[in-house]
Amino acid sequence: MTIKRHEPSKILSHAVEANGFVFLAGITPKDTGADIKGQTKQVIDEIDRLLKLCGTDKTKIVSATIWVSDIRYRDGMNEIWTQWNGGQNLPVRACIEAKLADPRMLVEIQVTAVK
Amino acid sequence: MTIKRHEPSKILSHAVEANGFVFLAGITPKDTGADIKGQTKQVIDEIDRLLKLCGTDKTKIVSATIWVSDIRYRDGMNEIWTQWNGGQNLPVRACIEAKLADPRMLVEIQVTAVK
Amino acid sequence: MTIKRHEPSKILSHAVEANGFVFLAGITPKDTGADIKGQTKQVIDEIDRLLKLCGTDKTKIVSATIWVSDIRYRDGMNEIWTQWNGGQNLPVRACIEAKLADPRMLVEIQVTAVK
Repeated sequence: MTIKRHEPSKILSHAVEANGFVFLAGITPKDTGADIKGQTKQVIDEIDRLLKLCGTDKTKIVSATIWVSDIRYRDGMNEIWTQWNGGQNLPVRACIEAKLADPRMLVEIQVTAVK
Repeated sequence: MTIKRHEPSKILSHAVEANGFVFLAGITPKDTGADIKGQTKQVIDEIDRLLKLCGTDKTKIVSATIWVSDIRYRDGMNEIWTQWNGGQNLPVRACIEAKLADPRMLVEIQVTAVK
Repeated sequence: MTIKRHEPSKILSHAVEANGFVFLAGITPKDTGADIKGQTKQVIDEIDRLLKLCGTDKTKIVSATIWVSDIRYRDGMNEIWTQWNGGQNLPVRACIEAKLADPRMLVEIQVTAVK
């Protein structure tokens, strides 16, 4: 059994590989001046980057948890979400409202993939 | 490595099989006119149906996340939860309050099973 | 495929082993009179105990979800979190605000490890 940890910060790893799964951290936007669509795009780009780093990609995501700071942002987030995956290879998903680490963050997405 | 995706909507799959696990989407009630017990029963019936579709059942659930729109609904939800599993083969669990996609939804349950 | 369930209560198992993974329940503090640091320490001690019971330890945690009842408790929680893991073998993580089962509970942590 090997665990491979990628890009650790002080408090978390941004990706961890174990037992055939790739776990990603909850990803938040860096430019919190953007609107919900802009923030979702930033999050998704970072997820793509981390999945690639682990040798997998968006077609192998099995599960996603999405937190939005206001549930009314769900539609804007979904628009970018659907542009991204094209309605193909869809993971299971839960999308709920929650206050995030910084009040300017409107969305956080955490995915699990296989490789 | 094979991924099997079941019953996709526009934004998610309702179940995904991978690496011996069965991941289910966060399931919400269809008849949001029901009270917390009625809504929990609907959710649980749908979970049973999806688990069966994937060739597994409630005795093989390993983990559950439960969101209630008001934490005071926890008792009503637990009553139906316990009737369902009979206190047997219990998964690990977290139950927290969160605003859900529709304000009339009182409960959302997401489970992971093995098969 | 074997599932091993540990320390069941009426509604959940405190740990479940399956397919090389160890799933722990969302752990909450017992002494809710303590402040965020004290509550986090209690939670972490219980996580250590349950991981040991399953034949694994904190160096093998792959993923953590942390709910705080007020997002401003994040800093206090992180201080104890970092003392605990020493910035080594860090899991992926999401930390969000949520109302917990009892209003006096300030933090709940759920981890998944491998063994």
